[in-house]
Amino acid sequence: MKKYFRDPIYNFIIIDDKWILDLINSKEFQRLRQIRQLGTSEVTYYGANHTRFSHSIGTMYLMDRALSQLKNVINIDDEMRKIGLAAALLHDIGHGPFSHVFEKIIGTKHEQWTINIILGDTEVNRILRGIDETFPQKVANVIKKEYEHKYLSYLLSSQLDVDRMDYLLRDSYYVGVKYGLFDVDMLIKSLLVNNDNVVVDYKGLYAVEQYVYARHYMYWQVYYHKTTRGYELLLQNILKRAKYLYEQNSLDIKIDVLTPIFKNENINVNDYIRLNDSVILYAILLWKDSTDRILSDLCCKYLYRDLYKAYELKQSVPISLDRIREKLNSQGMDDEYYLALDRPSNVTYDYYVEGEEGEKPPILINNKGKIRSITRFSDSIRAISGNQGIKYYLYFPRNNYEGVNICDDIIKYLDEYLEGLE
Amino acid sequence: MKKYFRDPIYNFIIIDDKWILDLINSKEFQRLRQIRQLGTSEVTYYGANHTRFSHSIGTMYLMDRALSQLKNVINIDDEMRKIGLAAALLHDIGHGPFSHVFEKIIGTKHEQWTINIILGDTEVNRILRGIDETFPQKVANVIKKEYEHKYLSYLLSSQLDVDRMDYLLRDSYYVGVKYGLFDVDMLIKSLLVNNDNVVVDYKGLYAVEQYVYARHYMYWQVYYHKTTRGYELLLQNILKRAKYLYEQNSLDIKIDVLTPIFKNENINVNDYIRLNDSVILYAILLWKDSTDRILSDLCCKYLYRDLYKAYELKQSVPISLDRIREKLNSQGMDDEYYLALDRPSNVTYDYYVEGEEGEKPPILINNKGKIRSITRFSDSIRAISGNQGIKYYLYFPRNNYEGVNICDDIIKYLDEYLEGLE
Amino acid sequence: MKKYFRDPIYNFIIIDDKWILDLINSKEFQRLRQIRQLGTSEVTYYGANHTRFSHSIGTMYLMDRALSQLKNVINIDDEMRKIGLAAALLHDIGHGPFSHVFEKIIGTKHEQWTINIILGDTEVNRILRGIDETFPQKVANVIKKEYEHKYLSYLLSSQLDVDRMDYLLRDSYYVGVKYGLFDVDMLIKSLLVNNDNVVVDYKGLYAVEQYVYARHYMYWQVYYHKTTRGYELLLQNILKRAKYLYEQNSLDIKIDVLTPIFKNENINVNDYIRLNDSVILYAILLWKDSTDRILSDLCCKYLYRDLYKAYELKQSVPISLDRIREKLNSQGMDDEYYLALDRPSNVTYDYYVEGEEGEKPPILINNKGKIRSITRFSDSIRAISGNQGIKYYLYFPRNNYEGVNICDDIIKYLDEYLEGLE
Amino acid sequence: MKKYFRDPIYNFIIIDDKWILDLINSKEFQRLRQIRQLGTSEVTYYGANHTRFSHSIGTMYLMDRALSQLKNVINIDDEMRKIGLAAALLHDIGHGPFSHVFEKIIGTKHEQWTINIILGDTEVNRILRGIDETFPQKVANVIKKEYEHKYLSYLLSSQLDVDRMDYLLRDSYYVGVKYGLFDVDMLIKSLLVNNDNVVVDYKGLYAVEQYVYARHYMYWQVYYHKTTRGYELLLQNILKRAKYLYEQNSLDIKIDVLTPIFKNENINVNDYIRLNDSVILYAILLWKDSTDRILSDLCCKYLYRDLYKAYELKQSVPISLDRIREKLNSQGMDDEYYLALDRPSNVTYDYYVEGEEGEKPPILINNKGKIRSITRFSDSIRAISGNQGIKYYLYFPRNNYEGVNICDDIIKYLDEYLEGLE
Repeated sequence: MKKYFRDPIYNFIIIDDKWILDLINSKEFQRLRQIRQLGTSEVTYYGANHTRFSHSIGTMYLMDRALSQLKNVINIDDEMRKIGLAAALLHDIGHGPFSHVFEKIIGTKHEQWTINIILGDTEVNRILRGIDETFPQKVANVIKKEYEHKYLSYLLSSQLDVDRMDYLLRDSYYVGVKYGLFDVDMLIKSLLVNNDNVVVDYKGLYAVEQYVYARHYMYWQVYYHKTTRGYELLLQNILKRAKYLYEQNSLDIKIDVLTPIFKNENINVNDYIRLNDSVILYAILLWKDSTDRILSDLCCKYLYRDLYKAYELKQSVPISLDRIREKLNSQGMDDEYYLALDRPSNVTYDYYVEGEEGEKPPILINNKGKIRSITRFSDSIRAISGNQGIKYYLYFPRNNYEGVNICDDIIKYLDEYLEGLE
Repeated sequence: MKKYFRDPIYNFIIIDDKWILDLINSKEFQRLRQIRQLGTSEVTYYGANHTRFSHSIGTMYLMDRALSQLKNVINIDDEMRKIGLAAALLHDIGHGPFSHVFEKIIGTKHEQWTINIILGDTEVNRILRGIDETFPQKVANVIKKEYEHKYLSYLLSSQLDVDRMDYLLRDSYYVGVKYGLFDVDMLIKSLLVNNDNVVVDYKGLYAVEQYVYARHYMYWQVYYHKTTRGYELLLQNILKRAKYLYEQNSLDIKIDVLTPIFKNENINVNDYIRLNDSVILYAILLWKDSTDRILSDLCCKYLYRDLYKAYELKQSVPISLDRIREKLNSQGMDDEYYLALDRPSNVTYDYYVEGEEGEKPPILINNKGKIRSITRFSDSIRAISGNQGIKYYLYFPRNNYEGVNICDDIIKYLDEYLEGLE
Repeated sequence: MKKYFRDPIYNFIIIDDKWILDLINSKEFQRLRQIRQLGTSEVTYYGANHTRFSHSIGTMYLMDRALSQLKNVINIDDEMRKIGLAAALLHDIGHGPFSHVFEKIIGTKHEQWTINIILGDTEVNRILRGIDETFPQKVANVIKKEYEHKYLSYLLSSQLDVDRMDYLLRDSYYVGVKYGLFDVDMLIKSLLVNNDNVVVDYKGLYAVEQYVYARHYMYWQVYYHKTTRGYELLLQNILKRAKYLYEQNSLDIKIDVLTPIFKNENINVNDYIRLNDSVILYAILLWKDSTDRILSDLCCKYLYRDLYKAYELKQSVPISLDRIREKLNSQGMDDEYYLALDRPSNVTYDYYVEGEEGEKPPILINNKGKIRSITRFSDSIRAISGNQGIKYYLYFPRNNYEGVNICDDIIKYLDEYLEGLE
Repeated sequence: MKKYFRDPIYNFIIIDDKWILDLINSKEFQRLRQIRQLGTSEVTYYGANHTRFSHSIGTMYLMDRALSQLKNVINIDDEMRKIGLAAALLHDIGHGPFSHVFEKIIGTKHEQWTINIILGDTEVNRILRGIDETFPQKVANVIKKEYEHKYLSYLLSSQLDVDRMDYLLRDSYYVGVKYGLFDVDMLIKSLLVNNDNVVVDYKGLYAVEQYVYARHYMYWQVYYHKTTRGYELLLQNILKRAKYLYEQNSLDIKIDVLTPIFKNENINVNDYIRLNDSVILYAILLWKDSTDRILSDLCCKYLYRDLYKAYELKQSVPISLDRIREKLNSQGMDDEYYLALDRPSNVTYDYYVEGEEGEKPPILINNKGKIRSITRFSDSIRAISGNQGIKYYLYFPRNNYEGVNICDDIIKYLDEYLEGLE
């Protein structure tokens, strides 16, 4: 019983395996329908409404195509294929709502929850065990990069993986930009395996360059957009404040689903999978009417797009924030919730340093049988290898509670201060 | 101060007018970010996550282009332009979550709420009055088709309007189908005005045909997809049950934002604009644990994709549902919530019958100065004019509460019954 | 040894079979690089520069996909597949330059030349015989609709064939219009075979409608564009005049490659395959300087875009051309070359009339096992079935040899005459 | 009288100015319909059939958009606009067939012919003088970079110009690759003028990077493809041989239009504009039957795709070609026509060295009022600045006249020789 999914990026995705359909229909996977892929980005780019559900299916689809290509050079048995597809489909299943924001509140990485869901008492686990008792562990191992055939982990999560391929294409499509486009067909048909490593044939070199730069552009143009980051900050402060109030026994409006999170106890899988975007959005809707002035104000700012002002600092100047804190406090605004220095940073392509924590294997190129790091062949990738891009934004409110502009004064202070430094 | 919006359909939408930006930033308009354009369609087509926010901006953009085109043939002063743009931007502002479903519960059409928001005590109203005291009423008149320059109403809502143009293109893009595509550039540059009527120049005839059929295809392939309709039914039954329980004082889990709706009193604008998709989704998440067996069961079905079975009846056969009711009741299932006959119907293109209620003016073609109804020129549109497409689906559950299959038995009964009729 | 072709429509076309590459590299097939798919259309739509070479490869590609789909329902052995692919690849190999124009001069249809090339003493023939001595005849039989497995002929040439599918998509792409788009993926995966007939599953109904209308639009908007038709007429008159002069022994500038054509003897395959667009274009370039006033004038008109005026006659009115002939002759212009009535006509979708010459089998739909003609299910196709669209254009020059406008006078005469008839 | 051109890249191009339509209809401009944009590339990428006609109109269109953007920052009067549009439209009007190949035979650059056509006794010149007697010279000055408002020359021809923008987008579209895509809308709306220099606002930085790399990829993946270069070589040798034979009075088949070229006298504009692709293609068709063995053989190779073998040399190794010459001569093949070392080279982005011949002004970025070279901001562009990419291909035939393979022997010799060097 084939099932056809209409995918806006790849047109039809045809699924032939019953166990995959079962995974898709599981309650843990269906939850991903309510978790937007790009969190708060839709505030900046209104088209970015897509969810982790579609990205997860797209990632599995590209894994399938990559494995078909690799079958030309190595033997891939049915078990390996199934493990690869399951790992691709499930790799994001542990994402909470507004992912990175939420991780900070809950104190656990989404990768850990992905493992918990795969190995825990869940529908997903039961379906995987239905194939073979050892399956859940093997799938988890691919995600943890501990699986024996390491090319599968590489395909799923590395500097050149199907996860990134899908999200670059998909995010570009929904956002409506061309930054994330690259020649995915050429890239996939250039994939090879050598010595359990994924390797790209030389003919795909330009496609890899496009792919690496696609990610570079998407980071700085979309993912780290200052408006989006400002919204994340707002959301984080809302949750921080609510949690603080809960701990002080003074949160007047309780949101049942969030209570286990605020309790600081161990959260179980069942509680976790109740979380989705609508819970957070509903909470903000209610907390707007909280009697806590800070919580209420932050929620209003969130709902009615009264953003923090983002002031870009050229570089990491040794700026003292004390004067700004004073200004805010004199307006009765707690700087813990109304002032933040944000430093989004990203390494587009990293050199491999053996033994380093989180070491990132290089993208390898096969040039007529000789295998070398891509930086040997690509000027443009070498140029940015290991570079850490970083930006500095200072966020503060535009108005105090009474609606009086306090922003111009702070900007004036910053402008003068920075001019003095030049 | 120009503002550039990235639109996935039209690339950049540039907004130059401060008052438009103010309307977009108003709390009533920002609410549309949380209301998905196609409601439950994303269950069937996972890409369909876009919101009424982007559709509203797109509609305004096309109105602007249409008015620029019409300036070639008639005088359009600044006030007319502003009224046209405002009406286009705000035409959907009254939509509730999961629009048609919600309308049934609340008993008021979204069009009425649109008027309420434009004329009521709202930010939108204040911004419009900022232009001119008479503005809100004029904008409302365009929407109600009572404005003196009726070509504006025609452009916004008729058998050939910018609302449809935008949603066909946008829905196609997000769903990932090509059914809704047509040559929008050719269509817009063929627009003329004659005698306060919008008219299409003959050179745009094929573009109009494509447009009419685009809508035809989208209705039957996307909007009325049986899975989507089944989900709407589920949602409607959930809200009906919750309201019933509320009225019986036996709803154990209250959702504050929904209470005014259940109370059957007059709902004020402030209560109304708190409603969005996340409220409904959050409610379902909580009601899943209700002690009411029916409410809890329906919510589980919704969350975990345990859809009603849709059985297509060939035509309106005089089938008795009593036997099926019996079967359901014998399994303890209340047929009010577990059985429904759905009859989606649509007239793709309607003949104009003067004086008829809701009469729909025809699409007019200008052929070298002579103006005639499009059915004079187009075989394909004449072919479907006035035809009411209709389908009959009977929906019933797959399992009873204990998970026992009850569906096969009903299907067998229906198959045999229908065969007997042939 | 796989070969990858970059195709603008389908991205990569991968060819795995050596014999197909050999056919592509044969001299007869390479000739198609110099024959534009749409002949004179590029005068009207400047993007339409594509050749029969790319269309032929695209047609083979779609045949391959169609056969892969049909393998789900019938057995297709390796020989059948090869015959299908070869027939698709070679179906246009007999096309001369500016196809229909040239056919009139040479008096033989391109289909006949296709058969001649497949069966004659050619490279193509040798490659096909290399597979099996019977191959050339079998491939020719598919094209002549005399092959035993008639579904192959249907797939290649019918009212629903891969030839049309490819040219609609490709022509739209190059011309830059959206008229020819349809959901080709859905269409192909809906193909079935029943009783040696190709049948479309009901789920592909809308895709078929789009496809039929795509052709409808392309005919009237692109293929039969009056400017394009006017250019064809000019070209035809140039060749007619040159042939006439040759026969009178008074063609002062000989074009070697065209001599066999003008001789009215049997043309052999070797002479024929020397013909391509550049021969005609080169001839026009030289004949511009002919001492024959008519030939020279027509070539100037062709090269410098001094088109005939196209006057549209509403319907087949019984207009006498004598007065116009007189006007032209009084300016010294031979009406045989300077006046023409063109009647482009097309039947978008034809009813099947058994026994009729050139009978066209209907498109069949499979609705749950019952097979019926598409006109049973589709209002829009039924609406135009059997309708012969027809237009009437009268072409005459804008200026006489001395550059004096003679066109306005004729238009005035026609306007008055037609007005008198109303 | 507006005229709408359907452009596959930009959809509609609307032309409002009569003088532009006149230029387009001039015989010199119409000639561009018969000159393919990418010359022999269509042998490698069969979709690449587009002509300089469409590229020229596209370039003018982008110039128009760029000027509209610049009007936001500087005053552009009607004359400047007209001069800019005319220069953009006519910048390629001097191109001969298979441009670079032909330049070598004729010994004059196409840029010179562009000036000759603009200033000479031509229709184009007459139309330009119709605007103002000084117009032709001003337009020529923009092209020669001698116009007083140098930003116009920069827009037309620099490291960031509308010519490149159009050809990257257009060539990508026709070839069917994604390498040449970049965000042209963002790029154009970032253009500014400072001190008569074109400058890009910082917000367009990524779009510029994409544009620079688009050109990089297109050069190495498409324009310098070894198959394409091999075809150019073949074509060049055919023309060289024919010219040599003509000079020796032993060219048995004369092509009238080429005679003035072979005569080595001054070619006048009238002779020049008779040249187009079809002349060359027609000549090859006839020369195939020349009694000169070399000319005939080269033409066969060209027509029937019997390409030279391209052997890539890793770097500029000091290889002696004498042994290979011997091998060829021993097979009776003249190495002047059967052996060539090709060194395609390109500088993707060049540093500015003042005073250097052909100095290339840098792309300038405006970062909040400070204007700096782009290499200050862009790692990826800095990385390749001034780098001269270069490749080394040795071309030799696969077979001798009798069809005996001589290629394997040469390859074996080269392989061994190079291995010895390692």
